[in-house]
Amino acid sequence: MRTRLLSAASLLCFATLPAFADPLPSWNDTDTKSRIIAFVDATTDTASDDYVTPADRIAVFDNDGTLWAEQPVYFQLLYAMDRVARMAEDDPSILTSDVLKAAANGDLEGALANGEDGLIEIVVTSHSGLSVSAFEQDVSDWLETAVHPQTGAPIIGMVYQPMLELLSYLRDEGFATYIVSGGGIHFMRAFAEDVYGIPPQQVIGSAGKSSYAVIDGVPTIMKDPGIAFVDDKEGKPIGIDTKIGKRPILVGGNSDGDFEMLEWATAGDGPRLGMIVHHTDADREWAYDRDSHIGSLSRGLDESDARGWLLIDMAGDWANIWP
Amino acid sequence: MRTRLLSAASLLCFATLPAFADPLPSWNDTDTKSRIIAFVDATTDTASDDYVTPADRIAVFDNDGTLWAEQPVYFQLLYAMDRVARMAEDDPSILTSDVLKAAANGDLEGALANGEDGLIEIVVTSHSGLSVSAFEQDVSDWLETAVHPQTGAPIIGMVYQPMLELLSYLRDEGFATYIVSGGGIHFMRAFAEDVYGIPPQQVIGSAGKSSYAVIDGVPTIMKDPGIAFVDDKEGKPIGIDTKIGKRPILVGGNSDGDFEMLEWATAGDGPRLGMIVHHTDADREWAYDRDSHIGSLSRGLDESDARGWLLIDMAGDWANIWP
Ligand SMILES: [Ca+2]
Ligand SMILES: [Ca+2]
Repeated sequence: MRTRLLSAASLLCFATLPAFADPLPSWNDTDTKSRIIAFVDATTDTASDDYVTPADRIAVFDNDGTLWAEQPVYFQLLYAMDRVARMAEDDPSILTSDVLKAAANGDLEGALANGEDGLIEIVVTSHSGLSVSAFEQDVSDWLETAVHPQTGAPIIGMVYQPMLELLSYLRDEGFATYIVSGGGIHFMRAFAEDVYGIPPQQVIGSAGKSSYAVIDGVPTIMKDPGIAFVDDKEGKPIGIDTKIGKRPILVGGNSDGDFEMLEWATAGDGPRLGMIVHHTDADREWAYDRDSHIGSLSRGLDESDARGWLLIDMAGDWANIWP
Repeated sequence: MRTRLLSAASLLCFATLPAFADPLPSWNDTDTKSRIIAFVDATTDTASDDYVTPADRIAVFDNDGTLWAEQPVYFQLLYAMDRVARMAEDDPSILTSDVLKAAANGDLEGALANGEDGLIEIVVTSHSGLSVSAFEQDVSDWLETAVHPQTGAPIIGMVYQPMLELLSYLRDEGFATYIVSGGGIHFMRAFAEDVYGIPPQQVIGSAGKSSYAVIDGVPTIMKDPGIAFVDDKEGKPIGIDTKIGKRPILVGGNSDGDFEMLEWATAGDGPRLGMIVHHTDADREWAYDRDSHIGSLSRGLDESDARGWLLIDMAGDWANIWP
């Protein structure tokens, strides 16, 4: 599983930088960058009042819109549609609804026509009935060739270089970096270690039901229909409590789905840093916030100042966006 | 939370031993000890065909009956009964059933009289309606004085010294050690780090429902009535998949509730070690297996030889049992 490294991923650089080098070269020299570095310096300097022991240096990040792009739809939906199309080649009778037929035809508008119910139908159909290991291999295979529907760029290359640098920087400074995302846990694990350097046990996400069975003599964990956990909104602090059991000291998100996680983490004692990636760059990426059908950011935008959260201005703070 | 170290726990020793010392001094020089050391040597020697990269050196252990004692009832039930009694002092109206009344009176027989339904009633009553942090502090406080109902020994001292040594030895050899237990995740986290050296993110267990709320301005995770996940039998491999995302190479358990976890983990490619603590020592601990109402071991006993699992004979393999 995940043995074939994605070609685009292999271009991403996680090299440890010498201490005198700029740890965040793709960040412009703005207040945002200064505040991040000041926070890391303060929490890792044993002489600082804000020193935090390495065991408590927990940093968590949302994935869609925070570590990689999410427009025009979550990339996991693109995968789900592709898999429905491949499943229908073997067995057209699985296309039991207009939404599934649209998904199989690559018709994004049709796939979205039934709102959330339709999306769940596409995801459940495509994400169940196979083993966890077969599923992760299938995602990994898909990512080798999947391209963005608008730009034609490889999906796996649509990760944010500044955030890759931030993840590496934090790890170099003794932080444990976690993903805490509404995305599917097995979907993300298929690439999180190769692309973000985040191992499977540090990926927290939504999960479908699963079951254990010995199939033809082989002990197997199967992905079943149905949803076991939704790691979004208040689900994010709950997921962190259940899986990590500690309150993170650094949290990054991009939408109001991250609000509760930011609120909970930054309310803890001692130094805390909350950050929100604000999509302000229509030229190099996308510009959207309050009215976006995906990654909507409204309350976070209204309250980030009063709460002391760092609003990352993608257009102004990031020198480069893509690797 | 957990700031007051338990007095008995502070006596436990986790010192790193020099390489030439016996890493398992409380284990007799039997085949069991030889097989454990041979497995660790083979998986950590880069020249060995069975070498395993540190990232894949995942070791998981059941808790009740594997790392600490479990007779005459799970110690978590003793805590639950004690908490029901304290809750009833404040508000006697919570004692709405005979089982809860028995629990409040410390009447173990009465608490068990209604079988599993009664136990769930006692656990749900005592494990909900407070925040996670208040709950963990309450467990920690209880453990400072809780004694065993039969022996009067401190509960926190009823951990197995040979297993403490095994946990330390494995960590010294680059293994990550996890608990995977049917016990409650927040209950175990209250002592797992102090007593076993296992941090909260490496404790996997059963979980009640929880919710996130801002209470009097304080973001809080509350423990609610109801059960979210049962980490027993087939739930153990599922819990490991969800939280670790890798198949362990070493698994320790003691009852048929660990069967599926042992089966799944030892079926993986490469070197694997499954072990079962067999309670054979009525003099120093307890002797029980097939017919025990708690920690019943039957299928594991029948199949351990054929499956190559190591059956640990507590009476013969352990020189000391208690710290
Ligand atoms: Ca997001
Ligand atoms: Ca057990």
